[in-house]
Amino acid sequence: MYGVILAGGSGTRFWPISREQSPKQLQEIVGPGTMIQNTVQRLLPLISIEKMYVGTKHNQAIETLRQLAPYGFVANHLMAEPCSRNTALAIGVMAQMMVDKDPDAIMGVFPADHVVTNSEAFIKALQKAETLARKGYLVTLGIPPTRPETGFGYLKQGAEIENHEGAYHVERFVEKPDNPTAKQYLKQGNYYWNCGVFIWKASSILKELQQHAENIHSQLKTIVDCLQTSKGKPGHQELNKKGADFFSALPSLSIDYAVMEKSSQVALIPADIGWNDVGSWNALDEVYEKDPNGNIIRGNVLAQDCNNSIIQGQNRLIGVLGLNDTIVVDSPDALLVSSKEHSQDVKKLVETLIEKNHPEGKQPSTVKRPWGSYTVLDSGPSYLLKRIEVLPGETLSLQSHKHRSEHWTVVSGKAEVIRDQETFHLKANESITIPQNAKHRLGNSESELLIIIEIQFGLHLDENDISRYEDRYGRC
Amino acid sequence: MYGVILAGGSGTRFWPISREQSPKQLQEIVGPGTMIQNTVQRLLPLISIEKMYVGTKHNQAIETLRQLAPYGFVANHLMAEPCSRNTALAIGVMAQMMVDKDPDAIMGVFPADHVVTNSEAFIKALQKAETLARKGYLVTLGIPPTRPETGFGYLKQGAEIENHEGAYHVERFVEKPDNPTAKQYLKQGNYYWNCGVFIWKASSILKELQQHAENIHSQLKTIVDCLQTSKGKPGHQELNKKGADFFSALPSLSIDYAVMEKSSQVALIPADIGWNDVGSWNALDEVYEKDPNGNIIRGNVLAQDCNNSIIQGQNRLIGVLGLNDTIVVDSPDALLVSSKEHSQDVKKLVETLIEKNHPEGKQPSTVKRPWGSYTVLDSGPSYLLKRIEVLPGETLSLQSHKHRSEHWTVVSGKAEVIRDQETFHLKANESITIPQNAKHRLGNSESELLIIIEIQFGLHLDENDISRYEDRYGRC
Repeated sequence: MYGVILAGGSGTRFWPISREQSPKQLQEIVGPGTMIQNTVQRLLPLISIEKMYVGTKHNQAIETLRQLAPYGFVANHLMAEPCSRNTALAIGVMAQMMVDKDPDAIMGVFPADHVVTNSEAFIKALQKAETLARKGYLVTLGIPPTRPETGFGYLKQGAEIENHEGAYHVERFVEKPDNPTAKQYLKQGNYYWNCGVFIWKASSILKELQQHAENIHSQLKTIVDCLQTSKGKPGHQELNKKGADFFSALPSLSIDYAVMEKSSQVALIPADIGWNDVGSWNALDEVYEKDPNGNIIRGNVLAQDCNNSIIQGQNRLIGVLGLNDTIVVDSPDALLVSSKEHSQDVKKLVETLIEKNHPEGKQPSTVKRPWGSYTVLDSGPSYLLKRIEVLPGETLSLQSHKHRSEHWTVVSGKAEVIRDQETFHLKANESITIPQNAKHRLGNSESELLIIIEIQFGLHLDENDISRYEDRYGRC
Repeated sequence: MYGVILAGGSGTRFWPISREQSPKQLQEIVGPGTMIQNTVQRLLPLISIEKMYVGTKHNQAIETLRQLAPYGFVANHLMAEPCSRNTALAIGVMAQMMVDKDPDAIMGVFPADHVVTNSEAFIKALQKAETLARKGYLVTLGIPPTRPETGFGYLKQGAEIENHEGAYHVERFVEKPDNPTAKQYLKQGNYYWNCGVFIWKASSILKELQQHAENIHSQLKTIVDCLQTSKGKPGHQELNKKGADFFSALPSLSIDYAVMEKSSQVALIPADIGWNDVGSWNALDEVYEKDPNGNIIRGNVLAQDCNNSIIQGQNRLIGVLGLNDTIVVDSPDALLVSSKEHSQDVKKLVETLIEKNHPEGKQPSTVKRPWGSYTVLDSGPSYLLKRIEVLPGETLSLQSHKHRSEHWTVVSGKAEVIRDQETFHLKANESITIPQNAKHRLGNSESELLIIIEIQFGLHLDENDISRYEDRYGRC
């Protein structure tokens, strides 16, 4: 079986920890390990890493690859989408890629940001699903509901499939129900949550797309032909200009809406696997153990008289007094305090932040770059102070700035610095000044992390004040 | 009349904004202006600045003087106490100082950290009090209660004083009552809140101290003889070693307990002056206007569906959702989230922090020094990053460090740097390195604020790693 992990989250529900540039699947929301790392880990008993593929947004590709590198993930098995077009198109492109290589390929589709606590039951359900998929079924796992949830779609169980004990036809897909209906489903016992895991032959889903979503299907070959390996490191798949235009012009449809609700070939395998979609901060209540007062507390927190609250600190000290059913999530540049009842509104809050052009709505305080990251520590009318971390073996572009000079002091590791015609090797406690307009480059050719403190000085300090002359990540 | 402002707050109730080193009276809790500045401002129509005295803790003296300098406050009118010994001793020492200079001195005593919204009524009450004080009364202002408050002491009104309309004998002082008693007081109408404002002849209070607190009174002359002007700038009064020992050995008593509750000379002037002791974050509800949902919101805050809450931000963005009767106070290094019901427990929380050796319990993130301030911005295993602000005309001590080198970059203003035998003049965008063991000194001889970014580097980074050779603030 091949594995396709869909990792296109927008990072709004777990604000301020998740941001558009660092969404939920790349965070340790339910650690240890980020959610996408745990998703890969969970599949490894069944699917070898060479058979795994990931679809993600272009601006999340490099960090995704970095997180999956320890598993031996193949860089050009990652497809970076030029924009979000929901699951139908992403699945179609992946299926088309696979069928071109292996006409009988069985393809499992997995969200990158869910929790499954019973991995063994999960793997067993997938094995059962694989045998059905070989027969042409579009197989989906159904989670036995534990509460009258109105935030999920449901699957209604039909007749058992002949010779496949514990597998059923699906009588119908149901959109998110209202509360009384959800209560009825829970009582009836023959409704399951749709958890977004699908197993099918790549050729089967293409056939179904052709039948039910011809506008998408008709473009898939063209789009796959436009895939190319990205320039420079790390070499993932991306679309050329033509492909990106085709991709962007297609409708944004979920695979459920485009195919599953319409197909007669859908099979259901009930799977009691400890699944949780971790859809909001409230969900931590279901996946973490609580203290005797019902609290989940992490970080440098002093709590008195608090009950049923979620308090998540980072570096700063948090004192909490007399809170009930409250969520407090701290981050270096932004803070959330919400009643649990309003936890679904975090998404709305972030949308408002973005509308109002608050950078904290999208950009995290530590900004990831192909070569490492930077964090703004302080700023004034004519200076900006950053901590810059350069990963082992990585190097920033050869660049210059029109409006600022930079002072670098190495505080950990060793730096290789090119400044105009000269090359410098700086170790910790050594400094260098980069004047305005000087062509310069910062690199780390050692095996340890390089940390420098940068003081930018100038009257016009802007990330866009950069001329790039050479870049190993194709950003020239 | 002379004014004595008692400014010895411990800074626990308004944590995390107030800390032991920067308590409530030095903060803009009810701005504009800090509370001690507003106290001085309020008294100026009646008491000229040359006749004002301040008692405070030794570690708050320099910042207090800096805040009062714009009013022309005389530095050696500030008495820095070696430790906290409550109001009886502080008042006794001040009275003794005054009577030595002016045997008929009238002395008004004022807490530094209260709010009075009706300044005109306040001044009128003080004027009336002065005439009574000249006749030998210990006069106190009584605030007409507006709620059955159990956190204050009460004064029971006695008979009107002959020829002094609107002034009364005090039948008795009452300690903080329980709720039913407080309700009864409110209903009866002849009980007033004791607001800690007293007006008397310095000689009268000394006579009463002699009668009711002889152990304190007997030491006052000795202690006053031990007062000396502090070495170096800024020249306030402090006790020499002998005086500090005497001072510290005396009991910690309030003037209410030591004298007022026992004296027969107490007079009461009811004063409806818009008084508020601003005793906890909840008190902001009484002194600030609220938005239509009953919230008081300051800083970079996005609030949705919040009611009757107090949200106070600083630099970071705060998103709040669905909060009711909740207090959120952010600061660079610590955060408070409390239900309003628990707002009195902030004091307890800070005590716990101090017990557990959390530096955030005592020390603010921006640490004041005689020459300016520093703020820690970042740290790692072998580096510490600070923003250092040096006030115009000020200079740090001539010093050296055994275990660290320092890199300084000027980002605003001009620096005068001595490094061993050399002197450097650095302007913005210029850097210098101070090696381990080098004797060095940083100064600002210009009229603008100097801001430098300091990177300390070493394996042992500690504020105590400092040898001082010369210091204009007497810290050698």
